[in-house]
Amino acid sequence: MSRIVMKFGGTSVADLACIRNVATRVKREVEAGNEVAVVVSAMAGTTNQLVGWCQDLSPLHDAREYDTVVATGEQVTTGLLAISLQEIGVEARSWQGWQIPIRTDNDHGKARIAGIEGAELIRRMQTGQVAVVSGFQGIGTDNRVTTLGRGGSDTSAVALAAALHADRCDIYTDVDGVYTTDPRIVPQAKKLARISYEEMLELASVGAKVLQVRSVELGMVHNVRIFVRSSFDKPEDIDPFANHPPGTLICDESEIMEQQVVTGIAFSKDEAQISIRHVPDKPGVAAAIFGPLAEANVNVDMIVQNVSADGSTTDLTFTVPSSDYERANVVLKKSKDAIGYSYLDGSTDVAKVSVIGIGMRSHAGVAAQAFKALAEQQINIRAITTSEIKFSLLIDAARTDAAVRTLHSLYGLDK
Amino acid sequence: MSRIVMKFGGTSVADLACIRNVATRVKREVEAGNEVAVVVSAMAGTTNQLVGWCQDLSPLHDAREYDTVVATGEQVTTGLLAISLQEIGVEARSWQGWQIPIRTDNDHGKARIAGIEGAELIRRMQTGQVAVVSGFQGIGTDNRVTTLGRGGSDTSAVALAAALHADRCDIYTDVDGVYTTDPRIVPQAKKLARISYEEMLELASVGAKVLQVRSVELGMVHNVRIFVRSSFDKPEDIDPFANHPPGTLICDESEIMEQQVVTGIAFSKDEAQISIRHVPDKPGVAAAIFGPLAEANVNVDMIVQNVSADGSTTDLTFTVPSSDYERANVVLKKSKDAIGYSYLDGSTDVAKVSVIGIGMRSHAGVAAQAFKALAEQQINIRAITTSEIKFSLLIDAARTDAAVRTLHSLYGLDK
Repeated sequence: MSRIVMKFGGTSVADLACIRNVATRVKREVEAGNEVAVVVSAMAGTTNQLVGWCQDLSPLHDAREYDTVVATGEQVTTGLLAISLQEIGVEARSWQGWQIPIRTDNDHGKARIAGIEGAELIRRMQTGQVAVVSGFQGIGTDNRVTTLGRGGSDTSAVALAAALHADRCDIYTDVDGVYTTDPRIVPQAKKLARISYEEMLELASVGAKVLQVRSVELGMVHNVRIFVRSSFDKPEDIDPFANHPPGTLICDESEIMEQQVVTGIAFSKDEAQISIRHVPDKPGVAAAIFGPLAEANVNVDMIVQNVSADGSTTDLTFTVPSSDYERANVVLKKSKDAIGYSYLDGSTDVAKVSVIGIGMRSHAGVAAQAFKALAEQQINIRAITTSEIKFSLLIDAARTDAAVRTLHSLYGLDK
Repeated sequence: MSRIVMKFGGTSVADLACIRNVATRVKREVEAGNEVAVVVSAMAGTTNQLVGWCQDLSPLHDAREYDTVVATGEQVTTGLLAISLQEIGVEARSWQGWQIPIRTDNDHGKARIAGIEGAELIRRMQTGQVAVVSGFQGIGTDNRVTTLGRGGSDTSAVALAAALHADRCDIYTDVDGVYTTDPRIVPQAKKLARISYEEMLELASVGAKVLQVRSVELGMVHNVRIFVRSSFDKPEDIDPFANHPPGTLICDESEIMEQQVVTGIAFSKDEAQISIRHVPDKPGVAAAIFGPLAEANVNVDMIVQNVSADGSTTDLTFTVPSSDYERANVVLKKSKDAIGYSYLDGSTDVAKVSVIGIGMRSHAGVAAQAFKALAEQQINIRAITTSEIKFSLLIDAARTDAAVRTLHSLYGLDK
């Protein structure tokens, strides 16, 4: 017997037929003797409609009222799923954020969870009642409904799993797990049976859009096993702890026996590079550059600054999302005197490729292999950054697919 | 300066344009120096969709989950109206039943209001903030959302007006007030400037579908002035206490100066008559008849039993809605031996016409005038019941319009 949190997104509860399917899946877990809580999103399309209404009435609408409107989407799903479960003989009860309560701060529209009181839910789950919980929402100290921001249902589910001391949190999504890289680029990409929180964070933050980053962070902090699986896979209750489970288990690295050196290759084509030439090499210059960019809401990613040869000036390169490229240039030109550089250059025709693996920590020369392999393919590396379990390379956008395939093969992920 | 509760039904908030119109009306009351709370229904069509989903998933769905689903309709409207008000410079805040709270019993799907804590709302209204309140719902002692049943928003509004010690409760509807009778039958029908609670209750319960009966009862008990007006009339703030206000004020009879003897004529064509012949005239026989009918959910209306001539048997006549006619006959035939009657007869081709007026209490002969006038029109009266401020006549359905016109003219309502 396990205690499980199951999370279903909007496409999994898009209509009444989908909701009935979810009820059948939940029933199977209950019949296997598990205690179950279910976290649901709004029916697909609902949230967009509600958000659209708010924006139509007032582009600068009050976030508290926005939350009041938008949170109804999940409430409807909880009630409908509870009814569906009862209809097939499973005891169930719906719960909104204010009823449990799921306490958050008062940052309406993008609130953060402060705490969840799980005792009453645990008591009921122990009697066999399924708790059907609205994702994406909570209640602020102002006694008003808060929402966690788009995609917040993953975070709700993991936070609830932590509060309920659940054995795992099953996230049902459109994909059937986490892959070594994008199968559309590399057909040999393999689904990972397990991946550590740290690796998943690096994969997610560089473009593998399976899970909200916040939910993985939360899982890591509270050591909640997150099992990513498809809403459309066969519903047989296959062991998520097996060698070949139906999805991917995101867990502590200590639970991963045969750790590969490299776990996955991520990439992002939506990058632009900006280089600032002949920046004075003195204290405060980085602040003079990145302060104004942050104020302008430009999201800076890779930053590369080399040690200057002569101790007087240096070049500084960083990347931004392509959509921020023009804005970043405008901001930097305004700051030209304050920074004191000589000129800017850059390109929107670049891509970032990242190699991720916890095993890198104990294996030397992992990056060096990449440099050699890419050179053999005549792929030029514009910039390099490294962290403990990841290194990222900035290359010409046109060579992205070739680079990803080369690296995927190089690190034995094709097998 | 007055404290006002304004209530808008589903057709008044059917889409964003309608909600903006409502906001403009509310703003006008605020600018006139009034403290305002607004009670809203779900956008037209929403509740039916939500109810339909619950029924689709389970015909015998859990009323608690039904309430969770259906109550979202009003929640959406409150948030959208608050946003609309803020957009035009009116401070506003939405309130759900559980936030105020509006306490109810736990009779989910048709709960009754137990109490409303108005202090915080009054405090905010006194600072100029408009309270936008979800109609039709509250919170049970089980900490779950309850709904008051269809049409419950009128009741919410009047209950809120009582809790807030409001000077009046403005109910905006599809019609522009309460008429002496149905203008589709009698073109000379007049809109009433004022009507007493008691008369309104009699009018409403016999088919004038302007307000929920419960809301009028509540208004009478707490002496809340209810002002029925059209959502579509000119929005100028015309005095509801004037001789010719834009709508109808439902108030205590002491506020009505020139009381007419007869206030209005109501009628219902959806009636069926059942007569039970040769019923033993002894104690317990009425219970033997109406007990089984109540158990079968047959809604019995007029009951006429005459004093028996010989002290042994009597005839007993009553009316039911046409849709219950067959069921009532089945029930009565099963009870034939228990009741001991000789035979049943009846008709679905009957109508009930009611004459209502508080003035009847002090004027003799009001009903007698009706009998004479109808006789002159060759309209046969099948049965008669009377109460203090109303008498009802059962006639052939085909003569309904003629009877209503005759009575409307007879009592001077055409002028």
